[in-house]
Amino acid sequence: MDRRDRIAGLLGSLEAIPATLFGRDILLSWELSLQDIAALLTTAESLMEMHRLDLSLRVFESGLGVSIFRDKSTRTRYSFGAALDMLGLEEYAIDEESSQIAHGETVRETANMISFLTEVIGIRDDIYLGRGDAYMREVSEAVRYGAEKGILNRAPSIVNLQSDVDHPTQCLSDLAKLNDRFGARDNLKGRRIAVSWAYSPSYGKPLSVPQGLLGLVSRFGMDVVLAYPEGYELLPEVVDLAKRQANKSGGRLTVTHSMDEAFKDADVVYPKSWAPFRVMERRTELLSAGDRVGLADLERQCLEQNAKHREWECTDRRMALTGDEQALYMHCLPADITGVSCEAGEVSAEVFDRYMDHTYHQASFKPFVIASMILLTRVKDVADRLKTLLEKNETRRPM
Amino acid sequence: MDRRDRIAGLLGSLEAIPATLFGRDILLSWELSLQDIAALLTTAESLMEMHRLDLSLRVFESGLGVSIFRDKSTRTRYSFGAALDMLGLEEYAIDEESSQIAHGETVRETANMISFLTEVIGIRDDIYLGRGDAYMREVSEAVRYGAEKGILNRAPSIVNLQSDVDHPTQCLSDLAKLNDRFGARDNLKGRRIAVSWAYSPSYGKPLSVPQGLLGLVSRFGMDVVLAYPEGYELLPEVVDLAKRQANKSGGRLTVTHSMDEAFKDADVVYPKSWAPFRVMERRTELLSAGDRVGLADLERQCLEQNAKHREWECTDRRMALTGDEQALYMHCLPADITGVSCEAGEVSAEVFDRYMDHTYHQASFKPFVIASMILLTRVKDVADRLKTLLEKNETRRPM
Amino acid sequence: MDRRDRIAGLLGSLEAIPATLFGRDILLSWELSLQDIAALLTTAESLMEMHRLDLSLRVFESGLGVSIFRDKSTRTRYSFGAALDMLGLEEYAIDEESSQIAHGETVRETANMISFLTEVIGIRDDIYLGRGDAYMREVSEAVRYGAEKGILNRAPSIVNLQSDVDHPTQCLSDLAKLNDRFGARDNLKGRRIAVSWAYSPSYGKPLSVPQGLLGLVSRFGMDVVLAYPEGYELLPEVVDLAKRQANKSGGRLTVTHSMDEAFKDADVVYPKSWAPFRVMERRTELLSAGDRVGLADLERQCLEQNAKHREWECTDRRMALTGDEQALYMHCLPADITGVSCEAGEVSAEVFDRYMDHTYHQASFKPFVIASMILLTRVKDVADRLKTLLEKNETRRPM
Repeated sequence: MDRRDRIAGLLGSLEAIPATLFGRDILLSWELSLQDIAALLTTAESLMEMHRLDLSLRVFESGLGVSIFRDKSTRTRYSFGAALDMLGLEEYAIDEESSQIAHGETVRETANMISFLTEVIGIRDDIYLGRGDAYMREVSEAVRYGAEKGILNRAPSIVNLQSDVDHPTQCLSDLAKLNDRFGARDNLKGRRIAVSWAYSPSYGKPLSVPQGLLGLVSRFGMDVVLAYPEGYELLPEVVDLAKRQANKSGGRLTVTHSMDEAFKDADVVYPKSWAPFRVMERRTELLSAGDRVGLADLERQCLEQNAKHREWECTDRRMALTGDEQALYMHCLPADITGVSCEAGEVSAEVFDRYMDHTYHQASFKPFVIASMILLTRVKDVADRLKTLLEKNETRRPM
Repeated sequence: MDRRDRIAGLLGSLEAIPATLFGRDILLSWELSLQDIAALLTTAESLMEMHRLDLSLRVFESGLGVSIFRDKSTRTRYSFGAALDMLGLEEYAIDEESSQIAHGETVRETANMISFLTEVIGIRDDIYLGRGDAYMREVSEAVRYGAEKGILNRAPSIVNLQSDVDHPTQCLSDLAKLNDRFGARDNLKGRRIAVSWAYSPSYGKPLSVPQGLLGLVSRFGMDVVLAYPEGYELLPEVVDLAKRQANKSGGRLTVTHSMDEAFKDADVVYPKSWAPFRVMERRTELLSAGDRVGLADLERQCLEQNAKHREWECTDRRMALTGDEQALYMHCLPADITGVSCEAGEVSAEVFDRYMDHTYHQASFKPFVIASMILLTRVKDVADRLKTLLEKNETRRPM
Repeated sequence: MDRRDRIAGLLGSLEAIPATLFGRDILLSWELSLQDIAALLTTAESLMEMHRLDLSLRVFESGLGVSIFRDKSTRTRYSFGAALDMLGLEEYAIDEESSQIAHGETVRETANMISFLTEVIGIRDDIYLGRGDAYMREVSEAVRYGAEKGILNRAPSIVNLQSDVDHPTQCLSDLAKLNDRFGARDNLKGRRIAVSWAYSPSYGKPLSVPQGLLGLVSRFGMDVVLAYPEGYELLPEVVDLAKRQANKSGGRLTVTHSMDEAFKDADVVYPKSWAPFRVMERRTELLSAGDRVGLADLERQCLEQNAKHREWECTDRRMALTGDEQALYMHCLPADITGVSCEAGEVSAEVFDRYMDHTYHQASFKPFVIASMILLTRVKDVADRLKTLLEKNETRRPM
């Protein structure tokens, strides 16, 4: 009864949010208004609560969600599949190796060929700097062209499942976790979050998570500290944007090259490895040129460089520097855990174990965040639709 | 309202067509009566129109559609998946590399093992001449055996998603496009269609599309011109059949070795590369024998041979030879476009670009053609069933 | 009408069986009570009969069934997919090569990440002795942990789709076939079943089928004869358990090294190749150590060893030794058939052909056995639920 009231309240507030997501894509979180983000999180929360009541959430009776994963994925892939099933859509996975899809001039064609009965296309394309976001926009333009020309009944929405620039399904899940920890979004104001580089024995990890975090949390008045060893810069345009957003929202964004400094008095820490954007650029060039020797050289150099910063690990000592010694540790998973998944990594086993349930909980928002992206970009009056489902009270499974 | 009336009209005419597809397979279009083909196209058109109204088309509440792709595919694979989802069936993809399926004596066994709850099996097997169609018939006999013996509740229908002989889902989509262009099927009488070989830098493209086209359009009184450089013969038995059909339908089929000659006064041109059937035969022998050196030799010879015919390209100059200089350019996609997807190919960029929307539109029929094949082979009174759905007026998605 | 009465009768008896499967996993058949097994078979039979009436069996309105296949599979994979679709669940296949799943410390994490909206996880992990069953238990503990901590709404059930120890979906299908042959389970008492090793030209076949058979049929008073050439031992603990169970149930389990001896007066024969458990142990060690030379050596030794026992083939001569010369020949398929799938194998073509329909029929139980495992572990009052569906009388497909 309590939960039903709570859901009714959420849907009531959703109704009042002037979101503008209908008919759009979700590519970069900073292309969305604060109202859009509020609508996404409120919808995600509503779906999560309705799922706990085992209510049917089938808004669609048929229709496809196409997934294109140009990099491996377990969590996001599952979350996309689960979101589709929850809403009544069917996943259609395009595997680039077993199909004829390709870059370049053929994107327009293929995008239309896989969209005749498609509501949403989810894309992961995070490996090549300057490519992923551009590819998603190419697909989006292609299907909008198809819809204009009457080839498609309507253009599917494109949802970024991780690009070279942003990882909005992850970062909105992170924001949902922050809200869960600190209460409504207004309570993020002034909270200190350390987005810090951390050591990993692997090389070439995407920039999308730290960039996406900066681009999102800087809009809520947080005191964002970006920490990394010299040379491990993120894309400058994203950091600049985040600075402007932070100033506008009454927060700030500072950069430090000391992990200790970043952790000091932090309410939240998000230590995670990434490759310097210049390395990612160079790697893209070498990959494009098919230069294997160059790639092997680059990898060796980078691993040597990384090895100088093995000390950038999230340890008990560092957690003790945080606010009340109890900052929330966050990670998008999987983390490189020292002595567990690698000899030396991003986080000590002690810290990871203590916060493990929190990281799992953080991950649990993703299927519902993705479902809310699909709903809000495809359906005009989502609050009304969900109210109807709440009232119908049909169960999705017997007890 | 208009569209609803139009659909009601289509379903009325469908009701009057004495089709004989229930319980059958779709392997070669020329095994179907003209009434069968009329029923398939009328059903496809009805589904397409009903889809534009976002009407629910779920005829099945559960059940599987098995797909077996022995060659890569994007368009047809998507279309099969979309057709299944539209009707309420679930795709079950058999990947020969990750499973234990095989040729030969085990076909009967595997065919039954994947059919216990299966309504339809869609198969692409187009690479080996003399194999694909035979394999589909083996599967069909196997499941009919299983049904007779009570092992299966009923035998699934087999749908040819491209064999060594025919590509009926493609060619019926092509016919739907022709009808859309020229009005009802009777208006195809006397129309000139050039089915022409065209240059491609790749080798060993299947024969199924040109063969399927000849076998289908020759039945509607069209003036079919088959054009290819000497030596690039299609399967003689298919060409002979098409000639007989053309004569019977009041049309004709002529062969020329000049692309210009074929294009002259054409209403439709379908320039597309293929390998000579003797090369495909030889390739099948070499592949069977595992003769890698022989295969490499054959490929080299063929590419050299092809290179002599680079001039067989669909260009503006040739399009100007066609009737009123405005024949419809058709292609099953993807086309080899000169200067775009290859240095020199089947069609110039200018021609392709001008007709691009047409080729996309041509492709858009396929999900509905496949759905109509499934419906008409599985359900007795399709017109009645679709009328019920039209009257129910349930939406498959909210606006 | 008859069939509806029969189903009503089955559901009535199901209601009376005090099964304890709700909320549990299906890992080893001997962890289940005889009542549990009776409930599984009665449910499977009910579903099979309801499917013959084309009744809707959708108990779930949405939800995922995750499949993890660490070894290739056609039959079981299809059966799992078909069972999910039948019940209204969606398969979500985790492909270890294209995802980030792994062994070890990360199992807990991944297990939770793929369970947020998951009802069941089906796992095949049969290659490494000492690993498969352990892995399934790790996954089970992980999701139970997740549910306790509130990370998951509820823990999915784990269903063993073949481990290193048992193959319960296969062996329960085998038991369903035995019941079909000999009437109710009580009629198995005293029946003689020969579980015999047979020659195969391949090496390293899993132990799970013969072990699973022993562990299951020994509980029904059968006269179980285990036959193999010296050195081809199964896991001793499973054989010991089966002996104890046989004694308790009023049957017996004897071991012989003569295939003729085993076939003598048998009512059922199940000739099937396997690798000695010591070889499987050694192979696991070598695989873990990445010792390719050692593995190649082991394979050569084993094939040489196998070759000494080519005479262990199920032939007409041997079938003539069985009770009334007409024992039921069983196999989990695919069999190595002499002169068909290999030069010399487990069974002669004559015997296999004569019993082919029986082996297909044996296989046909599997989708329904798996569906019954899902239903009984996820839904409290299955009999009641199926009665409702029987009364509703909704068809899953039009005629």
